[in-house]
Amino acid sequence: MDDKRILDALASPADLKLLDNEELAIVAREIREEIISVTSRTGGHVASSLGAVEIILAAHSVLDCPHDKLVFDVGHQAYAHKLVTGRLNAFGTLRAYGGISGFPKPDESPYDVHPSGHASDSLSVALGLAKARDLRGGTEKVVAVIGDAALSGGMAFEALNHIGQAQTPLVIILNDNEMSISRNVGALMKHLGQMRASTQYRQTRDSLQEKLEKSGAFGTALANFGRNVKESMKQFVIPRSMIFEQLGILCTAPIDGHDIGALRETLSTVLATDGPVLMHVVTKKGAGYEPASRNPERFHGVGPYDIATGETPKKAAGAPTYTEAFGQALVREARRDPGIVAITAAMKDGTGLAPFAAEFPDRFIDAGIAEEHAVGMAAGLATGGKKPVVAIYSTFLQRAIDQMAINCALPDLNVVFAIDRAGIVGEDGPTHHGMFDLVYTRMIPHMRVLAPSNEAELAGALHTALTLGGPFAIRYPRGAAEGVAVPEEPALFEPGRANVVREGDDVAILAFGRMVSRALGAADVLAREGVQARVVDMRWAKPLDAQAIAEAARTKLVVTVEGGVLSGGVGEGVLAELARMGSTTPALTLGIRDAFVAQGKADLLLRDLGLDAEGIAAAIRGRL
Amino acid sequence: MDDKRILDALASPADLKLLDNEELAIVAREIREEIISVTSRTGGHVASSLGAVEIILAAHSVLDCPHDKLVFDVGHQAYAHKLVTGRLNAFGTLRAYGGISGFPKPDESPYDVHPSGHASDSLSVALGLAKARDLRGGTEKVVAVIGDAALSGGMAFEALNHIGQAQTPLVIILNDNEMSISRNVGALMKHLGQMRASTQYRQTRDSLQEKLEKSGAFGTALANFGRNVKESMKQFVIPRSMIFEQLGILCTAPIDGHDIGALRETLSTVLATDGPVLMHVVTKKGAGYEPASRNPERFHGVGPYDIATGETPKKAAGAPTYTEAFGQALVREARRDPGIVAITAAMKDGTGLAPFAAEFPDRFIDAGIAEEHAVGMAAGLATGGKKPVVAIYSTFLQRAIDQMAINCALPDLNVVFAIDRAGIVGEDGPTHHGMFDLVYTRMIPHMRVLAPSNEAELAGALHTALTLGGPFAIRYPRGAAEGVAVPEEPALFEPGRANVVREGDDVAILAFGRMVSRALGAADVLAREGVQARVVDMRWAKPLDAQAIAEAARTKLVVTVEGGVLSGGVGEGVLAELARMGSTTPALTLGIRDAFVAQGKADLLLRDLGLDAEGIAAAIRGRL
Repeated sequence: MDDKRILDALASPADLKLLDNEELAIVAREIREEIISVTSRTGGHVASSLGAVEIILAAHSVLDCPHDKLVFDVGHQAYAHKLVTGRLNAFGTLRAYGGISGFPKPDESPYDVHPSGHASDSLSVALGLAKARDLRGGTEKVVAVIGDAALSGGMAFEALNHIGQAQTPLVIILNDNEMSISRNVGALMKHLGQMRASTQYRQTRDSLQEKLEKSGAFGTALANFGRNVKESMKQFVIPRSMIFEQLGILCTAPIDGHDIGALRETLSTVLATDGPVLMHVVTKKGAGYEPASRNPERFHGVGPYDIATGETPKKAAGAPTYTEAFGQALVREARRDPGIVAITAAMKDGTGLAPFAAEFPDRFIDAGIAEEHAVGMAAGLATGGKKPVVAIYSTFLQRAIDQMAINCALPDLNVVFAIDRAGIVGEDGPTHHGMFDLVYTRMIPHMRVLAPSNEAELAGALHTALTLGGPFAIRYPRGAAEGVAVPEEPALFEPGRANVVREGDDVAILAFGRMVSRALGAADVLAREGVQARVVDMRWAKPLDAQAIAEAARTKLVVTVEGGVLSGGVGEGVLAELARMGSTTPALTLGIRDAFVAQGKADLLLRDLGLDAEGIAAAIRGRL
Repeated sequence: MDDKRILDALASPADLKLLDNEELAIVAREIREEIISVTSRTGGHVASSLGAVEIILAAHSVLDCPHDKLVFDVGHQAYAHKLVTGRLNAFGTLRAYGGISGFPKPDESPYDVHPSGHASDSLSVALGLAKARDLRGGTEKVVAVIGDAALSGGMAFEALNHIGQAQTPLVIILNDNEMSISRNVGALMKHLGQMRASTQYRQTRDSLQEKLEKSGAFGTALANFGRNVKESMKQFVIPRSMIFEQLGILCTAPIDGHDIGALRETLSTVLATDGPVLMHVVTKKGAGYEPASRNPERFHGVGPYDIATGETPKKAAGAPTYTEAFGQALVREARRDPGIVAITAAMKDGTGLAPFAAEFPDRFIDAGIAEEHAVGMAAGLATGGKKPVVAIYSTFLQRAIDQMAINCALPDLNVVFAIDRAGIVGEDGPTHHGMFDLVYTRMIPHMRVLAPSNEAELAGALHTALTLGGPFAIRYPRGAAEGVAVPEEPALFEPGRANVVREGDDVAILAFGRMVSRALGAADVLAREGVQARVVDMRWAKPLDAQAIAEAARTKLVVTVEGGVLSGGVGEGVLAELARMGSTTPALTLGIRDAFVAQGKADLLLRDLGLDAEGIAAAIRGRL
């Protein structure tokens, strides 16, 4: 560590107030070096965090946190915030088991207001904070930082609509980096682009005042704005065609998000208004690090990389990821069935749909960060005779459970939900684990739920879902698949029929998805102790294989293993089958107990949860 | 039936094309009379349906349904649609068990495109239909009808954002009735109000063309629009400040939604464009029936009423509803605790919050139809030191499950979810039953879940949740409570402690919420047969009372009864407890099997589901 850095001398973010713009620019450089140094080893959300350094320094040099509230949307842009709020020394543990979270996390620091992770929620949280302040008669400032992509989420619009009406002081810093995680989508993006490109909307303060006087609609707020503005108001404009303005939220002209002086000055000014203001800031993802700014999409979430080149180590030739296996299987299906349409919510690459999009551009739809709409649109496509496959991460599909139930399942439509990142995902931690999907899919009538245990099973599951029709959920984990061969002709599964993958009569382990491989490991451990464990790849989480369960009940112990929460999970579904058949065989359900799960390598987390081979074997041993 | 009515002579909606505007106005009157005649007996969504009669007649006289697709948002405005699409004779069974649904329902008619019921979904479904059409090379028109209130839902904005980008032909009829179900909220509403009030935005076709030529942004679409417009285009304007226009969706000026000629002409014209168009139609809720237009809020969803006066029969003095009991209990708590804030999503009256809003206007927040935002804002309020109570119907809270988990439960915030209309709700049918809340609440770590069995228990549950803190869900049903006295000082419940309400050692019935009274009825039935059934009011769905379950396991049969789906429900949670303690006692879980539930009086539905006293007793008898 270089002890000459200003960064090392900062005792708290308040020290930033003592620095001038040039010194802050130096701190910005130091922070970028630190982010690159650490993330080149740990991986992380590099491009977003590099793009937001100046915004964060300006905010902390103007605000008085943690008294003032700085709320981050999604939160993967907040590394600089971590570095100036007491977490410099621990930053090397970023995203590691027991280490610093890659997202704002209130448990970790009083400067982290709210657990971020799911897009588009910051404006609602900020309005709640502002209303709490107003009710209390408090004076703290509330500032939300939200990216342009997150604005396409409906929740953000719901909040904007309310903020425009509520007219309480609140600053929204729009971090407009001219791209979402994947390709930009949506008319709003286009609108922002116009805002950036056009100069004709620029008006001086005088025009602003004139406009204010003419405007009756948001009179009070606007007049107050006029009273409060400082002489530096010249930098302000009201873009004539701004959507936000129509909603009652004053906007600044786009300003350079890497000009720390402009950011400080503008933020100070907008903080003095007594209504909501949107501060439109244009940044560059990956700013200050050429490999990341050249390829921000790859550096959105990246593994360890070489600092000099930006190259990531070649993946050892081996098993594809489940995500890749899904993408390949979908392309194969789509070649035979022209009715198949693929939908992503701003995660084309993350969900493995890039090959599909390349081969079938007309049949690929990116709905933006808009899971509710994505699923509702799938219902429309299915009603129109298409076979939509909606690929969304388990944790983000939580946003569209109602649409799965009411729009897709109730009318029994042919919609396939490809639920990626199901189960423990690893370093992204509690906001990103896919802990709930086995619960929220199996509670829905008409829905059938498949949990493939390897990439060949995944191909079969997809083929089965598309062949049988009706609402289907297929859930599979993050990371490398099992390395088995995928047959040219995928299997067609008989509904509710499990697959015995290891014989044994002492105990029967009914395993779901990736837990099948752990169960096989546990069976090996138990075999060394003289216990013969049957392992059943249940394949279907719904409908369950009643016969396989009845046969399991003829052993001494029925064990279920799933990669999700136990409360409402499929293990409980097995217990219900056992109860229905009047079984008195003891049963043991293994899965995630009633707690959120920390961050860290998935294997470490599964070990802690007792869901590795040793843990499963130990739990069984304890019940025999 | 008056056989001289034109309405009776209509063989299909295509016959409407043969009628001139005056004849259609007569049909409109006949439809209103029919709606009033039937709903005065059946109850229903009167005000919305009366307001949309001309829109629906105009649509069916211009469109060629079911080839063309007419999608209704929410759907309670669609009675006229039902009457002209073959359901006139059956209309007297509206909302009854086995009768005509109060909402569009594909099972019922090919003219019903999609099951409506949850707000803000029509635009996503419509875009999906349009994309399916485009992929197929089809020619059908796609028209969505959406009210102004539903536009505040984020899902609608997500769809608008995508529609503006997709630029495929699609007509959105904005049924702007100048009010949502409850008080209007949101800046968007204000904007619509401006649109209606102002005349200065009116431009002739020439100004439109001029504007089109200058506009580069949505060039293609706009130019195409220009090419397609007919000479009647003079009626069109582009309101200068329209949000929709910014999103790439052309808009008409507001037109009179009860002028059938204007509606036909305008709709014909906008259907000829090859991009998305929003047709802004201003209607009056309850139009044509004075009691409803004078009091549209009461006539939103109303029971049987007197046609002459509009009066509904006085409720027999008796038990309050659960909703009223909740509202009263909350007011009592709020008088003692200034930290309590109440939040509704456009359902102030429906959720019983009107007395709270009257007494504590500053502490009452209506978020609009925006459940995601409502719950996210609650997280902000709780972070800011307040104690938000979010009152939302069980079925609509399905929109905010992610926010319950990630925004409220993960950071362990003091947010109370008052889940009204839990369980079977009756006449509104499958989109409105609260079947899932016991599943989606209990899957969430940190969340504690209470299911009060009467109004005193409800008061105690609320007091307990507000006293103990942390995320809490309290679920209670629609309709009359049990008529027990509510003590002045509400009880403070010990977490996870059940309440034995009837002793018995042959069988133990562990019942949740309203099912406690059914279980007591079943115990009476069984007692006559010599079977002594213990009945336990479990009170807590999470954490469960392990001791009560262990004691139940000492009888011959453990029975659980809940008013929600069995898959993932709390009965399975009880089975998990039994498995954990190694019980071999037979167990029987009663609840809603894996199917959506029809409409009809709740008692009839519960009987069909085997969840009335006789059904529960019969199920138990079959297992003893």
